[in-house]
This record gives sequence, C-alpha cells and structure tokens, in this order.
Amino acid sequence: MFKILIIYYSRSGNTKKMAEFVRDGAKEEKVEVELKKVEDTTPEDMLNADGIIIGSPTYYGQPASPIIKLLEESVKYHGKFEGKIGGAFSSSANIGGGNETTILAILEAFLIHGMIIQGSYKGDHYGPVSIGKPDVRVEKQCKELGRRIAKLVMKNKS
Amino acid sequence: MFKILIIYYSRSGNTKKMAEFVRDGAKEEKVEVELKKVEDTTPEDMLNADGIIIGSPTYYGQPASPIIKLLEESVKYHGKFEGKIGGAFSSSANIGGGNETTILAILEAFLIHGMIIQGSYKGDHYGPVSIGKPDVRVEKQCKELGRRIAKLVMKNKS
Amino acid sequence: MFKILIIYYSRSGNTKKMAEFVRDGAKEEKVEVELKKVEDTTPEDMLNADGIIIGSPTYYGQPASPIIKLLEESVKYHGKFEGKIGGAFSSSANIGGGNETTILAILEAFLIHGMIIQGSYKGDHYGPVSIGKPDVRVEKQCKELGRRIAKLVMKNKS
Amino acid sequence: MFKILIIYYSRSGNTKKMAEFVRDGAKEEKVEVELKKVEDTTPEDMLNADGIIIGSPTYYGQPASPIIKLLEESVKYHGKFEGKIGGAFSSSANIGGGNETTILAILEAFLIHGMIIQGSYKGDHYGPVSIGKPDVRVEKQCKELGRRIAKLVMKNKS
Repeated sequence: MFKILIIYYSRSGNTKKMAEFVRDGAKEEKVEVELKKVEDTTPEDMLNADGIIIGSPTYYGQPASPIIKLLEESVKYHGKFEGKIGGAFSSSANIGGGNETTILAILEAFLIHGMIIQGSYKGDHYGPVSIGKPDVRVEKQCKELGRRIAKLVMKNKS
Repeated sequence: MFKILIIYYSRSGNTKKMAEFVRDGAKEEKVEVELKKVEDTTPEDMLNADGIIIGSPTYYGQPASPIIKLLEESVKYHGKFEGKIGGAFSSSANIGGGNETTILAILEAFLIHGMIIQGSYKGDHYGPVSIGKPDVRVEKQCKELGRRIAKLVMKNKS
Repeated sequence: MFKILIIYYSRSGNTKKMAEFVRDGAKEEKVEVELKKVEDTTPEDMLNADGIIIGSPTYYGQPASPIIKLLEESVKYHGKFEGKIGGAFSSSANIGGGNETTILAILEAFLIHGMIIQGSYKGDHYGPVSIGKPDVRVEKQCKELGRRIAKLVMKNKS
Repeated sequence: MFKILIIYYSRSGNTKKMAEFVRDGAKEEKVEVELKKVEDTTPEDMLNADGIIIGSPTYYGQPASPIIKLLEESVKYHGKFEGKIGGAFSSSANIGGGNETTILAILEAFLIHGMIIQGSYKGDHYGPVSIGKPDVRVEKQCKELGRRIAKLVMKNKS
C-alpha cells in the first residue's frame, strides 16, 4: 500500500486541525496515512513516503523555520524524491498576505526535489488556507487536498 | 495517442529554438506533439491537448502579454483542464533576474487550472532557462522537459 | 508638485472602485493625483509620474493582459524609472489564491525598473486585496496605500 | 550617523564574501556599517539598524533556516521596523533555479515589516546572485547594492 506522510508545525492548534482534516480526506482512498509533527520528522520519514504534504503557519510570508530546516536536511536524499507527490497548506492569524507565498515556498522546494504537484481549479488553488480557526470551508478544502494527493500517488507510483 | 501542445512566443528566435528542443525531447516518447506560436493558438487547442508546455521570453519578470492573454481566455474552459500536465520555460537577453518569476507565473496559472506539474532535481529546477541563444546545456534541459512531460501524460491520462 | 498616477483595469467595477479609494488617500497629501484606465495609459504617462500605482483583477494568478502589455511597452524608458515609487492592488471574484501573486507580479516589474516599493506592517502587507465588492476594510487599506505612496514620493523625490 | 546592518549565513564562504563586498559598497557613503553572521544576530540588532541587508545561500529555493528563524523572531518588534530600508542577496552552488525565490522570500518578509526596498534596473534586478565563487561581476553588483541601500537610508530616515 502506498504511504502518505502529513507533516505540520502548529503552535495554536490551527495548522494541526488542518492536518487532521487532510488526513481524513486521504484516508478515504486506499493509502496508508501518517500524521507527524515536524519536530518528530526526519528526512528518512520523507524518503519512505510516496506522498508528502506539509502544513505551516505563515510567518513573514514564509513557512515556519522548523519546516525550512527539515526541507534543508532533506538534501541528504537529493534525487531520491523524484516522482514523489507533494502538497501544502497554511494558516495565519489574520488576513493580510503571506499565505500564498508560504504555500508556494513549500511547493517550490518540492519542485526542486523533482516532485509532482497539482493545483485545484476550485477552492484554494495552490493549497488550503485558513485564517484563524479552520471552518467548514477549510475542512472541505483540506479533505479535498488529502483525497487529491492520494489519487495522484496511486496513479503515479503504480 | 496522447497529445502534447507546445506554445511559444518568440521575437528573437531564442524561445522558438527552445520550443523546438522541447518538441524533440517529447517526440522520443509515444505521444503526438504539436508546436504552435501563441498568436495561432486558441483555448480550444489547449482543451484538446493532454499536456501543455508554454515558453516565453522574460519581460519585466513576467511572461509576454500574448501568453498572459491566452491564459486569460482559457477561463472559458475553467475546470476542463483538471488533470492535464503542464510545463514552462523561458529565455532572456541577459542575466539579471526575472526568469524564475516568469516560469513560476505560467506554472501558477496551470495550478489554478487544476493541472499537474513536476520539477527537475537536476538542471533547471522550475523549467529550462536560456540566457541569450540556447546552448548545449539548454538544449539538454529542454529535451529533458519534453520527455518528462510526455511520460507524465502517459502515466496520468491512461 | 509631485505627481502620482493610478492605473487600473476593471471589468466589474471593483478594481475601479479600489482605484478611487487609493486616489482619495493620495489626495490627502500635497501631491497631484491622476486616475487612468490602462487602455488610456501610455509609457509616457508613466514616465511623467513620480509615483505609479497599478491595480488589476486576478486572472489565473496574474495581472490582466492589458496591464502586462503596458509594463512590456514601458521597456522603451528602461532606466528612466529608477527611483520612482510603486504600489499595487488587486481584486478577485472569490477567495482561492492568486491575489498575492498578482500584486507581487506588478511589484517585481517595478523592482526591475529600479523603482522603490514599501509594504504595510498592518492590513494587506503586499498591497490591498478585495474579494468581490470593496468593503470598508478594503476602503481603508486602499486609502492607506494612497497616503503611503504619496509620502514616499515626497520623501524620495525631493 | 545612520546604521546599516548586513546579516549573512555562509558555509562555503561564498555568501560571506558577497556580504563583504556589500559592506565595501555601503562604506563609500556616510553611514555606519556592521557585518554580522546570522548566528550572532538578534532582533534587537535589527531594531537598531536603519537599513538591513540579508544574504543567504539558496537551499531548495528558500533562505537558510537560521535566516528564516531570525525573521520569525523579529515578530517581537512587529511594527517597529516600518520605514527601515531592506535589501537581499543570495548564492548557490550551481545554476538551476531558486536564487530569485530565495531573494524574494527575504524581500517579502521586509515588506510584511512595512519596510522599503528598491530594485536595480541594470544587473541583478531583485538583488545580487552568485553562482559559486563571487566573480568580478558579482563584486560590482554587491557594492552597488551596498551603495544603493545606504543612499536610500539617508534619503528616507532624515
């Protein structure tokens, strides 16, 4: 069975809640899903997954530093992530800008790894965004992301 | 047979040359490949392709306006491009910055269409970039892009 | 007296409304302010302004093609815009992503011109964003942008 | 006298060399200039500077994690950096993409702080970029950045 790893950093609990919704969505497909705090995640965990989804709060328009640090350390396996599937989501305390650049930062790192990503033509195009506590709209977006990544994994890794 | 459409805008001939290299790469796989100037391309042409690769010079860090106009008009089929495969490349007169933002602009439009993209772990990560006339390095990058998109199409559209 | 030119593209009227709010804010300072549709704007108009603010709807994560076309044509005066002040704002039909990349596309073009830009630490950091019809929050953001650009012009062009 | 702080992260020495060139350029103007490793820099150091220039290698298209961490911690003074001047530069081991997104990540953080930035109409538009060891071209770009930021500081903080 293919494996999807959802990595998140969360202080307020909002990004964690989003991560759980993404997991619920992925679990609707025939894949194994694991949820991990970034603090507990190693590049090896990423290497062992077929799909990697990363969620982060928006700090100055960028992902949180533990996320950036993990991506940095993943250079150890540069070339080995080719063809894996990636996705991203972000939360922020208030409207204002920075959510898109946060998500794109994660997606750009995935592209540099040679990974495959997909947008959504409806909803949050680059990846789910929550302003404050995730509401019903965000829940739907997150579940859809989980399902989408799971389907892409099954299609591309078979 | 699956179809790949390569769309380009070129005044100096550099982007056209890159487009031809991308085509040569794609043709190594079992797909149909068409090369079109953006001026001759309609949203319908995009709708009929399984993979869409767009090349543009870098004007102020963005794709040329005819490229942006075509992407704009493609809204007519919003939702119908979901799952298509996308790629991008760019050329510029001199080093200085703007190539990456040009390529990312095209890739972002593809994501908003719900399309699938992939980076390269070696070479030009987001997409091939040429400074001035395409050299041997650029030729290799472009061919690799063509092959990569063709393979992704065959995998995802089957 | 220093001059600020506000350029916009608007089909639904939302971006136009934002442009008017930006103008109202700029007019609170001792500067001359002109509001122009992009269709009526030439690179010469830009050359004659000390501050240039551009507003656009979000089409596939990018500014509208007439905006991109005007920026392209401004290459005629490349080097002459150095030190001018720039700002940007955007509107979109619904939440989903693309507003930030639209504003950043305009700001990147300004940077390539050697222009000066400033963010906002409160409100919409990169530039005002409206989802649908501009509300009171957006009105405030737009006025603040107008005032900020006017002040930057007076400081830097004196 | 106004103060410019140049912060850098460097493992190979390339980014450090760039930082020294930026310092040399800034010193041609009547400003105080300090060069600091990111590991030795606090948000208080940033608070005490009128201009802040940050240099980083490109890791997966983003600044190094210690840079991101410092920017994160600067939230302590959110609002107090308004009107400061910012600049950025980056180095990478090889061509391939990611330099522009690295520089833009730093500039975006500055915009979110309400800071002022400026591009260059010649040379490296968003900020100096070095592929491998800084050469004469890069030296010139870096010095020009130092001078430009120093002039902007003197103009805007007077």
